[in-house]
Amino acid sequence: MARAPLDCLAMVDTDSAPGAVTVGLLGCGTVGSGVITLLRDNAEAIASRLGTPLRTGPVAVRDPSHERDVAVQGLTTDAQTVVDDPEVDVVCEVMGGIDPARELITGALERGKAVVTANKELVSTLGPELFALAGAKGTRLEFEAAVAGAIPIIRPLRESLAGDRVRRVLGILNGTTNFILTRMTEEGIGFDLALGEAQRLGYAEADPTADVDAFDAAQKAAIVASLAFDQHVVADDVYREGISAVTATDIALARRMGYVIKLLAIAEIDDGGRISVRVHPALVPVSHPLASVREAFNAVFVEGEAVGELMFYGRGAGSLPTASAVVGDLVSAARSTLRAERAPAMDGWPHAALEPFEDTLGQFFILLDVVDAPGVLAAVAGVFGSCDVSIKSVWQEGRQDHAQLLLITHAAVERNVQTTLRRLRELDHIQDVASVIRVEGGEL
Amino acid sequence: MARAPLDCLAMVDTDSAPGAVTVGLLGCGTVGSGVITLLRDNAEAIASRLGTPLRTGPVAVRDPSHERDVAVQGLTTDAQTVVDDPEVDVVCEVMGGIDPARELITGALERGKAVVTANKELVSTLGPELFALAGAKGTRLEFEAAVAGAIPIIRPLRESLAGDRVRRVLGILNGTTNFILTRMTEEGIGFDLALGEAQRLGYAEADPTADVDAFDAAQKAAIVASLAFDQHVVADDVYREGISAVTATDIALARRMGYVIKLLAIAEIDDGGRISVRVHPALVPVSHPLASVREAFNAVFVEGEAVGELMFYGRGAGSLPTASAVVGDLVSAARSTLRAERAPAMDGWPHAALEPFEDTLGQFFILLDVVDAPGVLAAVAGVFGSCDVSIKSVWQEGRQDHAQLLLITHAAVERNVQTTLRRLRELDHIQDVASVIRVEGGEL
Repeated sequence: MARAPLDCLAMVDTDSAPGAVTVGLLGCGTVGSGVITLLRDNAEAIASRLGTPLRTGPVAVRDPSHERDVAVQGLTTDAQTVVDDPEVDVVCEVMGGIDPARELITGALERGKAVVTANKELVSTLGPELFALAGAKGTRLEFEAAVAGAIPIIRPLRESLAGDRVRRVLGILNGTTNFILTRMTEEGIGFDLALGEAQRLGYAEADPTADVDAFDAAQKAAIVASLAFDQHVVADDVYREGISAVTATDIALARRMGYVIKLLAIAEIDDGGRISVRVHPALVPVSHPLASVREAFNAVFVEGEAVGELMFYGRGAGSLPTASAVVGDLVSAARSTLRAERAPAMDGWPHAALEPFEDTLGQFFILLDVVDAPGVLAAVAGVFGSCDVSIKSVWQEGRQDHAQLLLITHAAVERNVQTTLRRLRELDHIQDVASVIRVEGGEL
Repeated sequence: MARAPLDCLAMVDTDSAPGAVTVGLLGCGTVGSGVITLLRDNAEAIASRLGTPLRTGPVAVRDPSHERDVAVQGLTTDAQTVVDDPEVDVVCEVMGGIDPARELITGALERGKAVVTANKELVSTLGPELFALAGAKGTRLEFEAAVAGAIPIIRPLRESLAGDRVRRVLGILNGTTNFILTRMTEEGIGFDLALGEAQRLGYAEADPTADVDAFDAAQKAAIVASLAFDQHVVADDVYREGISAVTATDIALARRMGYVIKLLAIAEIDDGGRISVRVHPALVPVSHPLASVREAFNAVFVEGEAVGELMFYGRGAGSLPTASAVVGDLVSAARSTLRAERAPAMDGWPHAALEPFEDTLGQFFILLDVVDAPGVLAAVAGVFGSCDVSIKSVWQEGRQDHAQLLLITHAAVERNVQTTLRRLRELDHIQDVASVIRVEGGEL
């Protein structure tokens, strides 16, 4: 058996810890490598949150000699040994596909082990039988990463909304098609060109059928509908239309009428309890929160009777984002394995080590009323420079005998900005520092 | 003791159920009435999710004769009896303020009872001691409604991101100020006018200090920072600036530079583990997801190392939205009271009762290539009318010998729309039904 080198202290430490919970992995591709990376890099934080270390046990792969981004111990080509290993408490399935994932997960649940999976095809097809088995064995099957990748949507639907009734869910559940539609919308190009760009950038596969024809989104829609309405919906129940027929003209005309076009997954329940689940291109009003979900991002918009409108937004795919969702599930599953009945603890935390406010970095919008005289801008710029505050943009508007000068800074230390403002107020040609407002969400 | 009349079957049923979990309420104002309404209206769904009924026990109020939106049983003016009642398993504190909530919650935790609170002032001030007490007594203190009202943010931060590291949180945590800034932005009015409008519509109090000067947002920011970084931050640690100095000119100039102005709560951790927490008005690029959070909505934007960018959006206040968050916590707390160790079950669900696709309601965008001749529009409109599909808007553009006709329908039955399309294709003057795309997020 090929063995990768020991790769980090954290793993060595947690290996020998008493009471550690051991995760066995089925698969070590894009998502699996991300899971191993997070379990290693965040070992200390996870151990602190869980109360005990979470260590990586055996890892089943098809080809142990395959080059990986991360050093992996315990590689094996025999996936069954991972399921059978008495030291493995939680099985993490990140191999994808129906077979052999189905048999392996069934075997793990039958042994009473908790299972975490990122496999939307499996959950959307065989979910009912697997959940029934987990229930019968008193264990759990977690699958946050199987829907909308990194976006926490399962706990909100199952737990946070446990006292409410969901009426409708609208989701952008496929990043590839959202990227293509964003490009078509923002560059006015046609479907084929946008698909080519998505393929070049790695957002779309060489064979884009699963994404473009909405098979992927339909699987996720089935899972979301099940969670929203406490009823099983499988992928075959979902009406499905892809985006290949959407034209640049459609998008331009829709825009003129105040809409953008998105591939939406829709799950609705009517007053009689009948459910409709469908995935198709749809016009969405530009003022709707889903309209501003751009590029490869995903979002899930929920309409609940009491809660009103909720939206969850984030990355739908990618190694580390998806792994983040998987490891969140692993920590939950490990907690249940430990029979720790209380929620993640909030006691025993230290009081925060606070950064003094004057040390924080910030960008600023500064509006000055100045005398409209030669040399004013130079004097103002000189003050900023001497205080080590760099200017990003300046805009000046004359108003008879005076002018308004608007500056936006690059990120600068609060203390330096305050010194700058004090010196500006002392300048002869400055009548007033009219506004000072911070800028966020930009370059920091 | 005043007693409201018995008001619904569900409560009578659950009263007598064996193994029911009983909730005692402290307070029955806006949020408390919402909680009682949801526990009553959704009793069946909650019992099914929890495996046992969740019944309402005694309710402590200041004035039992006060008129309420909902009929309430078990009113008492002696809050201590709710805490002491051996039948009460979970105490729900929705009275607000520090005293006497602090003493009552402390008493409940000391008796090992789970507590659910919506009290941001209490959690942001005395959180550390209350969580320590809950931990020592092996019980739990839940507080989802204390931050961003109805938005599920606590489970995502504590559980879904348990394997990740949060670097930064940007939040719009106060609906009143976001409403005021939205009005100033969209109508070009000044702060005083916008505040007056917010007061008239019930979004702002007669004394708006807590909202406008950002005391409310600072309390929520302290809680969010604690959850994000596993360290206690209290409201006094938060740097705070309100929005009353923001002018219409600032907003107009910011807009010209590609920004909107929001009251942001910001929590950051640097590489050395030092934390900065602050609330102040900030310019946000219009392309940032937070920029499109309008009116009284709240949002929390999270930057995690592995997960990338996440955003959670929803109502920050209001009776039923806040109550939805409280009841979600009550179900979780009840589950832990029952020592039910597994996650909310997904087994035992029925297969969904699906609505046939042709029965679904939908709005449509229909693009037709037509011969540019008299009578075409009348013929087209006639087909729609005869199929019971109502037209919302029409737009026609001539192109030499032919024209494009774009129609957006009102909500119509799928089957009728398909019939319409079939008949349109048979019309002489129609060369092509170029596009048919559904419209969502609008009038349905």
